[in-house]
Amino acid sequence: MTEPAYVAVDWGTSSFRLWLIDRAGKVLAERRSDEGMLAAAKAGFAGVLQSHLTAVEAPAQLPVLVCGMAGAKTGWVEAGYVDTPAPLSAVLKQAALVPGETRDIRILPGIAQRDTRAPDVMRGEETQLLGAVAADAPRTLVVLPGTHSKWARVEHGMVLDFTTFMTGEMYDALLGHTILGRLPAGAPAVDGTAAFSRGVLRGLGAGGFTHDVFGARTLMLMGELPAGDVPEWLSGFVIGREIRNARTWAQHAGDDASRVLVVGSDALAKRYLTALEVSEIAATPGPVDAAAAGLFRIALAAGKLRHHA
Amino acid sequence: MTEPAYVAVDWGTSSFRLWLIDRAGKVLAERRSDEGMLAAAKAGFAGVLQSHLTAVEAPAQLPVLVCGMAGAKTGWVEAGYVDTPAPLSAVLKQAALVPGETRDIRILPGIAQRDTRAPDVMRGEETQLLGAVAADAPRTLVVLPGTHSKWARVEHGMVLDFTTFMTGEMYDALLGHTILGRLPAGAPAVDGTAAFSRGVLRGLGAGGFTHDVFGARTLMLMGELPAGDVPEWLSGFVIGREIRNARTWAQHAGDDASRVLVVGSDALAKRYLTALEVSEIAATPGPVDAAAAGLFRIALAAGKLRHHA
Repeated sequence: MTEPAYVAVDWGTSSFRLWLIDRAGKVLAERRSDEGMLAAAKAGFAGVLQSHLTAVEAPAQLPVLVCGMAGAKTGWVEAGYVDTPAPLSAVLKQAALVPGETRDIRILPGIAQRDTRAPDVMRGEETQLLGAVAADAPRTLVVLPGTHSKWARVEHGMVLDFTTFMTGEMYDALLGHTILGRLPAGAPAVDGTAAFSRGVLRGLGAGGFTHDVFGARTLMLMGELPAGDVPEWLSGFVIGREIRNARTWAQHAGDDASRVLVVGSDALAKRYLTALEVSEIAATPGPVDAAAAGLFRIALAAGKLRHHA
Repeated sequence: MTEPAYVAVDWGTSSFRLWLIDRAGKVLAERRSDEGMLAAAKAGFAGVLQSHLTAVEAPAQLPVLVCGMAGAKTGWVEAGYVDTPAPLSAVLKQAALVPGETRDIRILPGIAQRDTRAPDVMRGEETQLLGAVAADAPRTLVVLPGTHSKWARVEHGMVLDFTTFMTGEMYDALLGHTILGRLPAGAPAVDGTAAFSRGVLRGLGAGGFTHDVFGARTLMLMGELPAGDVPEWLSGFVIGREIRNARTWAQHAGDDASRVLVVGSDALAKRYLTALEVSEIAATPGPVDAAAAGLFRIALAAGKLRHHA
């Protein structure tokens, strides 16, 4: 086994992932837990991190590179934001060193986009973008599906601009806390795949969101959608509407939005691949563990920086 | 005191209202409770109604006219829907007689609008529309703010068409069950009125809903909106977006949407009056207790119908 060179951590709102990595970028060990920012803020960030470092037997001097919500105002150490267009070097320069630790622990900043109407922010996704898109790749349109989906345009390792959609959280809130989720108990799913596609098509249409989404209820009331298929229709609808609005956004920015890279390998990413097919947009699945790959690229560059320091 | 002529009931999802009314439409007694459809479905509709009839000392032969969710599939007796364009006479003809009761209890149907994409439905609001707009009034654009806001075009006592927006329920779900409502404890409101208007203006803009609403968080993160003012901004946003989409809908239907009648007299209706002013739409407050007035008109007509029966 090769020597570990550093530790990479993706510390999200509700999840924690850690990789022990060697100098060549090879993952030697991995840890996953649900000790995200919200849990760690109570338990103590240093203690949570140390327990995982101990579990993978990380040497005492090994540096740690953290991306994600640990750098938020309500996280461990606030790491601020880098403004778009944001090159890799700017993200590195603004990394926050955690004070009072014997180990070198650095938390990466997020990226902010100023806008005349309202700013937009990402924190953690920038690292996935760096891992998913090669440093010399030409302009690429990327989607990172999730609680707060991000669409970004990346070129030569630089995040040009991006936009956020609260798609996953909207789905959960609508299904869990509105009339759309009050379905007859035990209603069987009849054809979830068809319902999902119908929802996507409805999402791609031009109506108002809070009107169109009410279709989840009215279609059921009128016997046009089986009650058990409502969740699939709703999932298709929120994703379809995201695609519609992201396409408009990309086209405003000068991209024809005819192809997109989907970063993620979970069930949600698969839903996006299906929805993009319905939308007639060519979609390519991105690499697995894009965050780990991005942190590797940053660690490589950070090593160089430290060498010159 | 004049003789009571009939009992009018507006039986919503979560509220119950009853009026004892004389032949001239004068309200002799009133009852309000939170025994809406959801509560009454458990307690028993007949028992809930009887307890209020007893409380107002309603004579045993007095007929009862009910509008609202008591006529839903999951209500007391299913009363179905009348299709738009829906004249008063059609609503009357399809009223469902509650079986097995010594008293004449009739539940009014809702109104459904068939659409090539998804149908739309109302149940209870049709009675408010009848009470708010005179039978001989020319074409009128009406909004009924609420959990599920309705915009309708009414002409000569006929509901031409309508559209629903899940505005109130969306606000509750976003503030109560998403990151937008995770605000620092005890953050004081600084200028709620200004935040509401800013939210309305954002809502009137052209972006995607699940993107634009994320502004409630990013504006706060960037110090551009006090945390304590986020709820007011969010309220303004969802109402502003409703107005934007309802205006588009009305204009498609051939209405210039330059003026609208706001049915309701509560705090929510006042918000709509403010938001409509920001939107430069002339708004007129509708009558108080439009449902009672609508039930009176129906009872008058029903009396005639019964005479001929």
